Amino acid sequence: MLTLFHHPMSAACRFVRIAFGEYGEELALIEEMPWSRRKEFLALNPAGTLPVLLAEGDVPIVGATVIGEYLDETRGVLKRERRLFAENPMDRAEIRRLVDWYLGKMESEVTRHLVRERVLKPLMPNAAGGGSPDSTAIRAARANIRQHLKYTNWLAGTRHWLAGSRITYADLAAAAAFSVLDYLGEVDWRDNAAARDWYMRVKSRPSFRPLLADRVRGLAPVSHYADLDF
Amino acid sequence: MLTLFHHPMSAACRFVRIAFGEYGEELALIEEMPWSRRKEFLALNPAGTLPVLLAEGDVPIVGATVIGEYLDETRGVLKRERRLFAENPMDRAEIRRLVDWYLGKMESEVTRHLVRERVLKPLMPNAAGGGSPDSTAIRAARANIRQHLKYTNWLAGTRHWLAGSRITYADLAAAAAFSVLDYLGEVDWRDNAAARDWYMRVKSRPSFRPLLADRVRGLAPVSHYADLDF
Repeated sequence: MLTLFHHPMSAACRFVRIAFGEYGEELALIEEMPWSRRKEFLALNPAGTLPVLLAEGDVPIVGATVIGEYLDETRGVLKRERRLFAENPMDRAEIRRLVDWYLGKMESEVTRHLVRERVLKPLMPNAAGGGSPDSTAIRAARANIRQHLKYTNWLAGTRHWLAGSRITYADLAAAAAFSVLDYLGEVDWRDNAAARDWYMRVKSRPSFRPLLADRVRGLAPVSHYADLDF
Repeated sequence: MLTLFHHPMSAACRFVRIAFGEYGEELALIEEMPWSRRKEFLALNPAGTLPVLLAEGDVPIVGATVIGEYLDETRGVLKRERRLFAENPMDRAEIRRLVDWYLGKMESEVTRHLVRERVLKPLMPNAAGGGSPDSTAIRAARANIRQHLKYTNWLAGTRHWLAGSRITYADLAAAAAFSVLDYLGEVDWRDNAAARDWYMRVKSRPSFRPLLADRVRGLAPVSHYADLDF
């Protein structure tokens, strides 16, 4: 069994967990506090970021998209119609664009800020940057969610899955990001029926179940977080 | 010939230009102002970011790493010992980690800030965020360069090329980022002989020549920018 250094409220880490789950492969999870900069962890990844996978031979594979590519090269290619990636280079580029959208653009405009202000800061020691949440950062992130939800709603209304007719990494990345925000009650699904329906479909998959059981200290999820019919 | 929407002072765009250059393939370049948010450009890439490649059939391929993967899948695999990527999944993961380092981490800690404050702001209309440079942002970015230069010096001193014995995307990404900073005279090569020697080797390649001819309006490069023996 491979090992993943992760944090439960990291969208990038959730993406990796769902991907392994889809391929029916269990991961040993080690929770790493993103701010701690432990020496042993920095030796695996000098950038100090999550996730890090310890692959065969305990070689560290660093970062969600890099792990996703590794997983595709070592497992995905053998999965035929269950592969979470396309065969065609153009279709692969579209999947990668969307993974970057949700784990890059949305992360830096929305997810990272809400997680830092609402989840991490209350747990962090003051010396590491802990303390009261910054309400300006929260407001800005909340204003940005709407655009991402609207774009997802458009994609989900246009295509069966976000990158086309099959479930792919694009869906996993988007669902990973939205699931973190949904835990925090930050997603207003009401006017976005296509996005809501798409999220319900991803959320109902067995690979998603472990994420719905995640809890962070001192912060319970909103009541509908684990409901499959919300 | 394929078309690249780019900006000369974008490390991500430079990475793509060098990669195509290494494979001996010319690109038609269209300069796009990163702040302009032109309708026609947003139709190609709703994120509004650079670079965007118009691939075969004018299909837009969005983002430097996505274009890099596309280029490898459609050209690289045929290049044998001239391929800019490895064959082995573990080695590929290391190359991708370093590309993310230079075009992600270094970009967000250093490159983006210095380019925005020193190159773009003087050209941008006030309504788009133009105006006087923010000296705090410049100071912070300058403090961060040192760590990246030190890390690169360590890599270049340990391995012949940054990801191993052959030149790869990792070198192209790092050289693209450093070349932007070098244009601005922001890199102090003096105490980093291994990094300097490595950069000189990349800079001497024919694929790099067009970048050394790049000029931005109102800002000449430092005197050693285009010197092959600096």
